[in-house]
Amino acid sequence: MWRVGTDSPDVPVDLGAIDPRSTPGLPGRKVTGDDPKLWARSEVERIGAELATQQEMLFAQAAVEPQLGRTVLLVLQAMDCGGKDGAIKRVAGSMDPLGLRITAFGPPTPDELRHDFLWRIRKALPPTGYVGVFNRSHYEDVLVVRVNGLAPESVWRPRYKKINDFERRLAGAGTTVVKVMLHISRDEQRDRLMQRLINPDKHWKFNPADLDARGRWDDYQAAYAEALARCASDEAPWYVLPADRKWYRDWALAHLLRETFADLKLSYPQPDYDVTAQRHRLETDG
Amino acid sequence: MWRVGTDSPDVPVDLGAIDPRSTPGLPGRKVTGDDPKLWARSEVERIGAELATQQEMLFAQAAVEPQLGRTVLLVLQAMDCGGKDGAIKRVAGSMDPLGLRITAFGPPTPDELRHDFLWRIRKALPPTGYVGVFNRSHYEDVLVVRVNGLAPESVWRPRYKKINDFERRLAGAGTTVVKVMLHISRDEQRDRLMQRLINPDKHWKFNPADLDARGRWDDYQAAYAEALARCASDEAPWYVLPADRKWYRDWALAHLLRETFADLKLSYPQPDYDVTAQRHRLETDG
Repeated sequence: MWRVGTDSPDVPVDLGAIDPRSTPGLPGRKVTGDDPKLWARSEVERIGAELATQQEMLFAQAAVEPQLGRTVLLVLQAMDCGGKDGAIKRVAGSMDPLGLRITAFGPPTPDELRHDFLWRIRKALPPTGYVGVFNRSHYEDVLVVRVNGLAPESVWRPRYKKINDFERRLAGAGTTVVKVMLHISRDEQRDRLMQRLINPDKHWKFNPADLDARGRWDDYQAAYAEALARCASDEAPWYVLPADRKWYRDWALAHLLRETFADLKLSYPQPDYDVTAQRHRLETDG
Repeated sequence: MWRVGTDSPDVPVDLGAIDPRSTPGLPGRKVTGDDPKLWARSEVERIGAELATQQEMLFAQAAVEPQLGRTVLLVLQAMDCGGKDGAIKRVAGSMDPLGLRITAFGPPTPDELRHDFLWRIRKALPPTGYVGVFNRSHYEDVLVVRVNGLAPESVWRPRYKKINDFERRLAGAGTTVVKVMLHISRDEQRDRLMQRLINPDKHWKFNPADLDARGRWDDYQAAYAEALARCASDEAPWYVLPADRKWYRDWALAHLLRETFADLKLSYPQPDYDVTAQRHRLETDG
């Protein structure tokens, strides 16, 4: 996993230097044994149980003290077939669905287009105590919008600053924002698109427009490279996660979320009532 | 599981005749073996995988043909500690969180109180293709509102009809509505409340107001009994699910959802593009 630096926002991130098949941070064979894939899968299970507990604490704190509650927001971006859905299913799926708020952002509706690009994002922000997941996000407004020329540069370029301001305010209001780009190779994308065309149960996941976007691969990579550099901040860091290997992707994301929760130093809240008195009341009510 | 009849809406459902420890519909020992609990838990796993596939089909159909898409809405009601959260975690948790839309309804906010009682419910309806779960619902407006006298009878009584009209319209628009009351005994509630007072990690789940509601047990049962009778319809049936045994509760709910999906006769949609042409395009793009 590569955390994008915040020191040179004017220099695009060099995505070409990050191998989508690499596995940064993965422990060596001494830890994983001979089959890192098998090890990673069992670790995802184990970390998943920890995440579920952390999420419950987050939820509990907000339930007891809404004013002091925290929120976690995971923003996922990727090229088509980058594995967003799979990662959400495996990693967020370990948490209690009651405390999750997952939102997928597709092309904006006519109503959404009549508002500022952040309008629909604000509406989808997770309530205090929740773990929110954005499956695509406001970053599409500097990615697909830029690559497909859906708005002129005079419109999309100022959005980097607007996004930074927006995320800084979010963080200031108690939301931990973690942004992850699942980084796949063009070859891996072809293989995954082909699977969708071969397997009838997956046909519905394919859209001919995916091939148009694929044709603009380099433009997308450039748009990502600039967005990552311009919008990486200490309050809302960007991570580039090599995602050609699904087992590594899931492990790295689970690992990142565990670290995110650890920084919050969560615990179960103290009750705001007299436990002994309530026990007595319950014991004597028949 | 008891499906509430629709033939005598003026006669309250006799909840006292339904044993919360019973296990209607559970196969006999020939099927379950000597440990029905163990059997039920493994069945929940197995059925969960089926539900995940059904949910994906539901989602896929809506993605390809939004106009023909269907939606499933599970409404869960129960006394405190009735097991709504646990049932959602175990049963809905088997499905892909991406296609779930879970909403918990607490006491209405001042803003919500300024609107009709169905306003916040409508806003929380799942989009086409989703499985929605209501953790409490518009039924609170004929339950807690009635028992605690939060509104006069002249306000809450007409709501039965409003609810029926609302649910009929929902069903007519393609949403399959399934309503489940998790039916626990007063003794089981005491044990579960006590757990929340004994285990510090569960203190946050306890609220002294829970004991006030417990003090009005019979009033609540009467309010449930009337709501179930008046609002059971063929379009939006009510089920009373004996819920003292958690393993039965989870199995019965999973079983009910499986039957609900089976009635929809879902399948993966046909693609709306030429698969062969797209494969050729992908194969030749390098």
